[in-house]
Amino acid sequence: MTVTIVIAQGGGPTAVINQTVAGAALETMKRYPGARVLGALHGVRGIREGRFVTLSDLSEQELLRIAATPSAALGSTRDKPDEAYCEAIMRGLRGAGADAFINIGGNDTSGTQAILRDASGGGITFLHAPKTIDNDLMENDHTPGFISAAEMVAGAFLSIDLDFRALPGIYVGIVMGRHAGFLTASAAAWSLDEEGGPHLIYVPERAFSRERFVEDVKSVFHQYGRCIVAMSEGVTDAEGRSLVETLVPREMQERDAHGNLKLSGSDLGQAIERILAEDLPGRRARVDTFGYLPRGNIATINDTDAREAYAAGAFAVASLEQGHGSVALQFDGERTVCKLVELDAVAGKTREMPDRFMHVHESRISQEGLAYFNRLLPRRYDPAKPFV
Amino acid sequence: MTVTIVIAQGGGPTAVINQTVAGAALETMKRYPGARVLGALHGVRGIREGRFVTLSDLSEQELLRIAATPSAALGSTRDKPDEAYCEAIMRGLRGAGADAFINIGGNDTSGTQAILRDASGGGITFLHAPKTIDNDLMENDHTPGFISAAEMVAGAFLSIDLDFRALPGIYVGIVMGRHAGFLTASAAAWSLDEEGGPHLIYVPERAFSRERFVEDVKSVFHQYGRCIVAMSEGVTDAEGRSLVETLVPREMQERDAHGNLKLSGSDLGQAIERILAEDLPGRRARVDTFGYLPRGNIATINDTDAREAYAAGAFAVASLEQGHGSVALQFDGERTVCKLVELDAVAGKTREMPDRFMHVHESRISQEGLAYFNRLLPRRYDPAKPFV
Repeated sequence: MTVTIVIAQGGGPTAVINQTVAGAALETMKRYPGARVLGALHGVRGIREGRFVTLSDLSEQELLRIAATPSAALGSTRDKPDEAYCEAIMRGLRGAGADAFINIGGNDTSGTQAILRDASGGGITFLHAPKTIDNDLMENDHTPGFISAAEMVAGAFLSIDLDFRALPGIYVGIVMGRHAGFLTASAAAWSLDEEGGPHLIYVPERAFSRERFVEDVKSVFHQYGRCIVAMSEGVTDAEGRSLVETLVPREMQERDAHGNLKLSGSDLGQAIERILAEDLPGRRARVDTFGYLPRGNIATINDTDAREAYAAGAFAVASLEQGHGSVALQFDGERTVCKLVELDAVAGKTREMPDRFMHVHESRISQEGLAYFNRLLPRRYDPAKPFV
Repeated sequence: MTVTIVIAQGGGPTAVINQTVAGAALETMKRYPGARVLGALHGVRGIREGRFVTLSDLSEQELLRIAATPSAALGSTRDKPDEAYCEAIMRGLRGAGADAFINIGGNDTSGTQAILRDASGGGITFLHAPKTIDNDLMENDHTPGFISAAEMVAGAFLSIDLDFRALPGIYVGIVMGRHAGFLTASAAAWSLDEEGGPHLIYVPERAFSRERFVEDVKSVFHQYGRCIVAMSEGVTDAEGRSLVETLVPREMQERDAHGNLKLSGSDLGQAIERILAEDLPGRRARVDTFGYLPRGNIATINDTDAREAYAAGAFAVASLEQGHGSVALQFDGERTVCKLVELDAVAGKTREMPDRFMHVHESRISQEGLAYFNRLLPRRYDPAKPFV
């Protein structure tokens, strides 16, 4: 009987998510000669609608070229399947003759796999392979996609710091991350020296206050003559309200059909610009919204990240006979290894950045935090120290 | 008598402006053994205040390491010298024993050189070496710093296009450029295929209308199921008013001490988000502000750009005996060559992007425009075409 593996991608794309597809496809073709590997288009939606490509028809060379291409080549989805949707997915998988379904994604995607496992009644193995630039999956030391995104952020902040040594002022870069501050904190990974930016880091894990922010900026500016800030889109005040909610006039706030406030980097950027203009008048200030620029950037695909993403896909296939589960990247003290963990240990949960990664009393990264980011992201550049 | 050359950097930093410093310094040391090369800190301000570093004391290796570092290692300035300031600069140059002053920068910097030449009464040669990511200097085919910035923008838009194939929606990237659209239009340089984004480009050289923009986006979205937009910060309406002025509520507009409207990418980004929410409700949309990310980005330093920036500095020194002037990068039909042109041909003028670089009736780049960007920026990546 022909082995059939279905692969799908879910959630926001990354620079290396296609490596995981290629790793899973090529490992299947190696372990199960003659197997069929189907790629579902736009995630579970493609399974429901019967839209597949046959990845096992492609050559190794073609698959490796796809692997090296950022973003989700199969297309992605943010659909959260309800009961009827789950039944449609199950029909789709059975119709395709699937023995296993490997879904590559973050918390939501692992949640989908747990739901499908429970609804399946057996016969199909449900695996989750990790992917997220947010780095917020439980059981993982870090996640495929994160290092490349962090490399873009770290390089950008090193560059911005050099820029503001030449022309002093205040800079705030708004970085994605609704619940976890890892990507924002990675801005500090390649800081040039003791005086190097980012000087201040604001993450969702720590309550934000306007007064504290303004005092922080004043203090850094006084000390260094410039101030570089990395701020998460997801920062909230002590009551858990987003900055957009507290800072943007109500009539300017945008809400969706359910009345949920739309969190946008541009809104936050404008709110921060207004704070700086009001509370630090006369200072040259600039706010940029990084937004999607780090997440699948072709200029900053990191080799380690690419290798690990490939390995996660291959390991999912190598684990098939152990049953349902989630592939996790763990650190054994010396190197990163793949482990198979329970889907429920990952599904729908969020790993926040450990509080000890930040200084206790200051809005900046701690030595332990820096050591973590430097382990994942060894310095790539060796710039000269400017004369100013 | 010892030859003394003063070098300074002006205006916004770029990824390769230090190459020009190194090129000038090393060419001086080669042509005039024993010469002193002084680097003024923070441009003409450093000359006025007598703040110099002696670049000729550094080894070739040290100078080449500085050359490879983005942003202005000597520091920069946006000071526009008045008469008294000019006299102070002249005193500073004479005090330093300067035979020549090479000022690296854009239109304003070349303007400073023309003013100083006229005020000098002879004895010092004033040279301008080109630098700007805006690519808006007269007499130049393109300017040092532009190609690296354009590489960041082109790679980002290629990546964003791949991202939005995976998860369809509308994306607007706001790119620097107050008067010239070159950097924004470079977003199209590495477009993946016929359907590839950016699908729409809005530059300062063409009047912007909200109605036309919304129709454009609707039409592209209808055709491709997604819409990627590159928009200059400097876009204005038919009356020359900035979008911020026309779209942002008056009470949200920020003005400086002189009552001048502050043009900010975040303001524009938020205004565009509101247009999309109001006129294209229910569509997934995202607006990011690139801001300073392209201009000195250490991840996208382009080799050609670096070489040409170095050559411009070396050529300035090689031209010293021809008198005052501005170094220009010109294209002779086969390759880029340095020429010395009159300071007045460059000073204070702006080269706009030729109108023929855009389609006559559509908000997209023309074949001629694309050929220009592809000549400067050959494709660096060969991504696979996604399945979706």
